[in-house]
Amino acid sequence: MPLTLTPLPGIPLIAPGDDLVQIIQESLPRLGLSLQEGDILVLAQKIVSKAQGRLVDLTTVETSQEALRLADQIDKDPRILELVLRESKEVLRTRPGTIIVEHRLGFVCANAGIDHSNVAGDAAGGEEWVLLLPEDPDAAACAIRQGLEAASGVRLGVMIIDSHGRAWRQGTVGVAIGLSGLPGLADLRGQADLFGYRLRITQVGVADELAAAASLVMGQAAEGTPAVHVRGFPYPLREGSLRELLRPKDQDLFR
Amino acid sequence: MPLTLTPLPGIPLIAPGDDLVQIIQESLPRLGLSLQEGDILVLAQKIVSKAQGRLVDLTTVETSQEALRLADQIDKDPRILELVLRESKEVLRTRPGTIIVEHRLGFVCANAGIDHSNVAGDAAGGEEWVLLLPEDPDAAACAIRQGLEAASGVRLGVMIIDSHGRAWRQGTVGVAIGLSGLPGLADLRGQADLFGYRLRITQVGVADELAAAASLVMGQAAEGTPAVHVRGFPYPLREGSLRELLRPKDQDLFR
Repeated sequence: MPLTLTPLPGIPLIAPGDDLVQIIQESLPRLGLSLQEGDILVLAQKIVSKAQGRLVDLTTVETSQEALRLADQIDKDPRILELVLRESKEVLRTRPGTIIVEHRLGFVCANAGIDHSNVAGDAAGGEEWVLLLPEDPDAAACAIRQGLEAASGVRLGVMIIDSHGRAWRQGTVGVAIGLSGLPGLADLRGQADLFGYRLRITQVGVADELAAAASLVMGQAAEGTPAVHVRGFPYPLREGSLRELLRPKDQDLFR
Repeated sequence: MPLTLTPLPGIPLIAPGDDLVQIIQESLPRLGLSLQEGDILVLAQKIVSKAQGRLVDLTTVETSQEALRLADQIDKDPRILELVLRESKEVLRTRPGTIIVEHRLGFVCANAGIDHSNVAGDAAGGEEWVLLLPEDPDAAACAIRQGLEAASGVRLGVMIIDSHGRAWRQGTVGVAIGLSGLPGLADLRGQADLFGYRLRITQVGVADELAAAASLVMGQAAEGTPAVHVRGFPYPLREGSLRELLRPKDQDLFR
């Protein structure tokens, strides 16, 4: 069975309080699609954050001494750095223009995932607004999944993704930041290969592989395709969580 | 247009000298597919390496002092470590059972990508054989692409992928190790978003995103699906290379 990823057409600009379940349900018929058992919906972080009202007006941010000191060091807006610090557990690396942190959600990323592009707080002062990541992306994915499952009567997966830079390689790739109803990892431990050896590679980051695929379909620039319908995910659906994908700090050779 | 990834059925076990162009061409009609302008074929490293005869009989490997010293330190087969060192520019990290290197091809990975599973050198002594990565994956992708383009008369992309572990996150994901006819990165620098701001994220690792998608479809255990047909790749095809995806060492905060 092929894996098919289809961008949902006609998703409007999202505002705080918008009902993403309803918006997805209204988009699917435009594709001639109805949800089937095992389908997965992948949503860009941005629309979930906006629906949650995670916009922050930079003019209201009070900067700490730490943010001001950091701003001097790395030449970034101290108000954004203040938000980065509030959203992070630990600063891993800094250099001019760049700050890499462990986000409070547990993953490592630049700028705590705070987004300054495509954010319009209001028509006049849009440039002073930024967007934080969703409060609890696993929970947000779960709520959207429950809404879509209730409406469709079939079992689904829902994933929220963002684009992260990587160690060693150029270019951002889509990664999962929240999921519900699909595995984060597929554990192949003990599964024999064709010649009866045990596999050395034991765990595959299947949610991140799907996130990368969906990110490819979404593109980056247009907010018109922040949701992707997936059919043919080749692993059994089960409960899943971002936590599966986070490498414990003491097992990480590159922190 | 949806992105569709279809595993090619009936790919046989590959032996040194096998003609992958012919094998792919024989598989496509089983899907009822003929190649169209812009299609991409993604191949697992393993079949390219095998066709190139990159199998090594471990009983023939002479171990250096460095390999023996390393074997003591991290409790691995010194013959495999000898091959890892020969295939690498630099050892980045070691700990018991694990060695992370910069491969001679320029990417960072565990074990220099040397594969001990699903390798049958001969029926009697299969366990003593390992498989090195392809000699020059960009060139291998280019040769396969030229063969398929000559046969089909349409412009195509070809990519060779492997599964790599990552800093910070659990689970391996598919990544590009060689490509021809498709971009490694899509450079969005200067492209305005919906509100006219400049995007902060400038480069997307589109080849790696596609590699992850294809890896998801291939799975890991069965050698039956080491080739995937892709239709609907959403970026214009152009010449591309693994080199685009390699972060220069002096720009890497995590080496």
